[in-house]
Amino acid sequence: MLIDSVTIIKKLRKKQFLVQQGELWKFNAFVSSGLVKTFSVDKDGKEHIINFSPEDHWFGDRESLTNGTPTRFNIDAVEDSEVVLVKKEDFEMLCSKIPALNGLVNSLLQKSFLVSQNRIHASISLTAEEKYRNFLDSYPYLANRIPQHMIAAYLGITPETITRARRNNHKK
Amino acid sequence: MLIDSVTIIKKLRKKQFLVQQGELWKFNAFVSSGLVKTFSVDKDGKEHIINFSPEDHWFGDRESLTNGTPTRFNIDAVEDSEVVLVKKEDFEMLCSKIPALNGLVNSLLQKSFLVSQNRIHASISLTAEEKYRNFLDSYPYLANRIPQHMIAAYLGITPETITRARRNNHKK
Repeated sequence: MLIDSVTIIKKLRKKQFLVQQGELWKFNAFVSSGLVKTFSVDKDGKEHIINFSPEDHWFGDRESLTNGTPTRFNIDAVEDSEVVLVKKEDFEMLCSKIPALNGLVNSLLQKSFLVSQNRIHASISLTAEEKYRNFLDSYPYLANRIPQHMIAAYLGITPETITRARRNNHKK
Repeated sequence: MLIDSVTIIKKLRKKQFLVQQGELWKFNAFVSSGLVKTFSVDKDGKEHIINFSPEDHWFGDRESLTNGTPTRFNIDAVEDSEVVLVKKEDFEMLCSKIPALNGLVNSLLQKSFLVSQNRIHASISLTAEEKYRNFLDSYPYLANRIPQHMIAAYLGITPETITRARRNNHKK
């Protein structure tokens, strides 16, 4: 089958890297099982997580993919995972042979944009504790799969804030 | 001309609203001159600015436009402005008659998504003062047109942080 001929299936053990900062990211990529994260590391070695991608989600660095520039991000597995990769040029070939794929890509892009806008709005309008509660409300199926320090690195808050929020929650 | 027949030109005085929270947003919209902002107002009356849109930029609430749900945002003019509006159904008609428009829309959406990702990354990885300096570096042509309290409401930082950052900058 056309699609089978261009897909690369890759298994990742927990903590295994798929790409590291400075490399080129050349794939359209989909998580078939598990959970991966996309993150930067600052000069003090601190991680900043731009995205969690669980099963059935697309992931990758669209900036590197589109512009052909080295990625600023790392991608590794939070859990043992299986991902499906399609090289950029193969994906473009698929889109030209299966025009409906373009519609899918655009609707995914639109959805990703709306999710980003909501995340920006939360990040500028909520307190640190509210950001954590909003994350739990938005992603109840992820909260127990992700260590607290990673949730903090995704929300741009301190792990102590999460500890405090959980304590305050228990009191209620 | 086809495009002329469906465009609505609207002049906005400074502080004049184009849409308010709870209304439907039905337009593809472009700023031809001036500067508008898109923002929410929380229960304490505090503004949170999701976007500044200067001349030559598209704006609006894509979520309300796409899903037909009432907008959570307000849009008003930061300066006297002129905007060009095309109703959703007219825009779809234009896209069907001028297929190249679809490419434009997708490339704008992609660009908006990348800008959003960068803003998210800045918001989770930078300190409050760094966020302000990053804003000045990213939008030097906007910094002098926007009051400090609005920049603070865009970055999710306090106006005091901006005052402090400016003082520290002068010392250098």
